[in-house]
Amino acid sequence: MSYDPAAPPEGDSSAVLLLSGGLDSYTAGGIARERGLELYALSFDYGQRHDREVKSAARVASDLGVKEHLTLELDLRKWGGSALTDKIAVPTGRDEGEMAESIPSTYVPARNIIFLSLALGYAEARGARAILAGMNQLDYSGYPDCRAEFLQAFEEMANRGTKAGVEGEGFRIWAPLVHMTKAEIVREGMRLGLDYGLTWSCYLGGETPCGACDSCILRAKGFMEAGVPDSLTS
Amino acid sequence: MSYDPAAPPEGDSSAVLLLSGGLDSYTAGGIARERGLELYALSFDYGQRHDREVKSAARVASDLGVKEHLTLELDLRKWGGSALTDKIAVPTGRDEGEMAESIPSTYVPARNIIFLSLALGYAEARGARAILAGMNQLDYSGYPDCRAEFLQAFEEMANRGTKAGVEGEGFRIWAPLVHMTKAEIVREGMRLGLDYGLTWSCYLGGETPCGACDSCILRAKGFMEAGVPDSLTS
Repeated sequence: MSYDPAAPPEGDSSAVLLLSGGLDSYTAGGIARERGLELYALSFDYGQRHDREVKSAARVASDLGVKEHLTLELDLRKWGGSALTDKIAVPTGRDEGEMAESIPSTYVPARNIIFLSLALGYAEARGARAILAGMNQLDYSGYPDCRAEFLQAFEEMANRGTKAGVEGEGFRIWAPLVHMTKAEIVREGMRLGLDYGLTWSCYLGGETPCGACDSCILRAKGFMEAGVPDSLTS
Repeated sequence: MSYDPAAPPEGDSSAVLLLSGGLDSYTAGGIARERGLELYALSFDYGQRHDREVKSAARVASDLGVKEHLTLELDLRKWGGSALTDKIAVPTGRDEGEMAESIPSTYVPARNIIFLSLALGYAEARGARAILAGMNQLDYSGYPDCRAEFLQAFEEMANRGTKAGVEGEGFRIWAPLVHMTKAEIVREGMRLGLDYGLTWSCYLGGETPCGACDSCILRAKGFMEAGVPDSLTS
């Protein structure tokens, strides 16, 4: 049995949160916190182009009041294949039409599958049954591993391949933002009282966001459409 | 569309091999080599109780003549939850009935899901479409992540969540040993001319195999039933 990944898990008291330190994972964590779930946060130092993201994850985890925050080192540069883990240029200055045309070079091979799998192991070890993640398929239509149908397939697989899945009540992959636009996510964060100045979205490693990579462009558009200033850049 | 995981992939010229350095992954590699596939081997240093396994993986990779062998460090001790990654005793002296009764404490939460996910990322980065692994469901009936129905679910998920899965011809999870007994695996290895003295199966970290853990017991039984000596222990 698989659910709409946006639907909250029933009867769970804890969840593992995939925490990148960006706007989406922070908002997902805020939604779970409002529901009273105890959170275990998992971040990755995977050889991405900067460690600013890792530092933002620590600040966001602290703000969310998580029970435990682990950062796993995972050197995906060993095989590369992405602008985020290899010597490939990050595209800049693209409009949404160009972003939607094809899977971008910032796609990291099987990244969300890898991250969800590790979150699953962590959840099983801690007795948590929900895996919480900030994927949204509208803004990241180019990434196959951000889509609801993928998340459902992952949940089915997880429940056939784990002890807790075959013996117990099974896992839920919970992606509360999956059907939301970036503007809707920002408005939800405002309602929850989140401080987006703690987060980091830029694909590059500078002191300030570049403003030109896909991630910066989508973020700026989200705040603009939501009609609120971005405290990170304003 | 999902296949019997034991069926060899059609039309593929390369595969990523999950290589533990044990008897099963070596045999799986031998089967692929006989079919002329170019192999990329992936091993893990995941905080298991010994590094003897990692050294055996290097010897087996060399014997198989793989094109590339990567060992990824992955500290699953961060969350533990298994006799192989935590301060939990490895069970010894159990007969097969006891092994089949329940999922053993040597089960590592979501381990094969994590390993297959990383192999998938490596395969996508190298343009390989087959993921080759030595799981067998008869001897490891207690491990949900060794079963054919799990491997099929993983393949389906992989083909919904990767660029190569949604845009290209998709991935195959190939587990040629999945329906074989340990004795059948040993006989297949003899036919292929494999040198099982290169391998390591024991869950413990001594200089010689303990002979008492589940893995040693299943290995000994396999060689006995196949009617050949184990060059590692004889």
